[in-house]
Amino acid sequence: MNNKHELIYEGKAKKIFTHDDADKVKIEFKDDATAFNALKKEKFEGKGKLNCLISARIFEILIEKNIPTHFIQLENENTMIAKKIKVIPLEIVLRNTAYGSLCKQTTIKPGTSLSKPLIDIYLKNDELNDPLITKDRIKLMNILSSDDLELIINLTLKVNEILKSFFKNIQLQLVDFKLEYGYDLKNNILLGDEISPDNCRLWDLNQKNGTIVSLDKDRFRNDLGGLIEAYSEIHRRINNFLMPK
Amino acid sequence: MNNKHELIYEGKAKKIFTHDDADKVKIEFKDDATAFNALKKEKFEGKGKLNCLISARIFEILIEKNIPTHFIQLENENTMIAKKIKVIPLEIVLRNTAYGSLCKQTTIKPGTSLSKPLIDIYLKNDELNDPLITKDRIKLMNILSSDDLELIINLTLKVNEILKSFFKNIQLQLVDFKLEYGYDLKNNILLGDEISPDNCRLWDLNQKNGTIVSLDKDRFRNDLGGLIEAYSEIHRRINNFLMPK
Repeated sequence: MNNKHELIYEGKAKKIFTHDDADKVKIEFKDDATAFNALKKEKFEGKGKLNCLISARIFEILIEKNIPTHFIQLENENTMIAKKIKVIPLEIVLRNTAYGSLCKQTTIKPGTSLSKPLIDIYLKNDELNDPLITKDRIKLMNILSSDDLELIINLTLKVNEILKSFFKNIQLQLVDFKLEYGYDLKNNILLGDEISPDNCRLWDLNQKNGTIVSLDKDRFRNDLGGLIEAYSEIHRRINNFLMPK
Repeated sequence: MNNKHELIYEGKAKKIFTHDDADKVKIEFKDDATAFNALKKEKFEGKGKLNCLISARIFEILIEKNIPTHFIQLENENTMIAKKIKVIPLEIVLRNTAYGSLCKQTTIKPGTSLSKPLIDIYLKNDELNDPLITKDRIKLMNILSSDDLELIINLTLKVNEILKSFFKNIQLQLVDFKLEYGYDLKNNILLGDEISPDNCRLWDLNQKNGTIVSLDKDRFRNDLGGLIEAYSEIHRRINNFLMPK
């Protein structure tokens, strides 16, 4: 995309480029979808753009509620400008409803509403297949201080309160989501990565008979089809809500 | 073994029978060895007897140091009488040195001496392949109260202090071990199961060049051979130490 900007990192769903300002980066969203640690792969034309636009909107909502994030502004439909951060190699998953891997690693039945949000933390490490990690193992590995760990857990709980209520307004149930954090150049902790149907499970509340209709990456994971239609629907509902005619 | 005693439960390495007293059970140690959730199986003649005798000795040492255990006495060489307990479905693993699954689920190198003992807790569930479980997941599943969980963690730390020093006396490094706990009929928490080279990693300290020589179930897991010889050596060192001529 940018001849004059250098590619710093290419992940499964995004490319990070340098910015003219050394404390910023450009994040380009790709059309690739991956699941099960990239064992399953497919390209969906338009997914990058949808995730970029949805993430930008969500980051704006969070910033308004004083959540520190890396987001600065959109550059174009599939690129955002963000503060440069050193990513903390942990994936913080918050679950409101039991689904996915939680139900394969415990006896909790899929669809169980949890009495309070559950935080599951995974080590961000493709080679090890992003394993579940305990607080004691995090301490042992010196990944971050206990205070910083508590800080990102508390931020995640706050993000949940904000997003659960926002998504409810647009008839979506926030089942679970995955966040990543990092340190900016002044060592402040910022919410990073993206917040999109790639890393949030969102179920349509416009279903009368209690059927689960996933409007998220489970459409790809579980071969349900209609991924772009689902992501477009999320984008449409967010825009309609934020910009009423 | 017992015509008049009913089989209550048959596990991978032990059979539990009723006892004439309703608050007791008879535990018969089998010769079967299993690993990797029983994907690997083999019979070693004499293993049951060795584990039963070793466990009895270890339980006696722990009882003397005021650790509450289910052990009452030996009935014969491969059967012990124990208090009847309702097993808590958790495996409490304490690690002094990094080895085994810890090194497959983190970037910690095998053989790393840990600055303080690490407690890893696994859900005891064969169908789910005994997955690692976090304290938050344990709470969510209502497996036991937070107080009882802290109690068994503290007991495990105490057991480690006792056993680490005991094994050091007989030139063995206690790398890690797995404990199981249960509630007796009065709802007291007791240490249950067995404590043997089947669930303790023990490395021979009589090695001058730092080579790891496993005197435990890793001989079977890792196809090293000489399992009965290793277990016999542990039994011999324990007996020599406890009954000096």
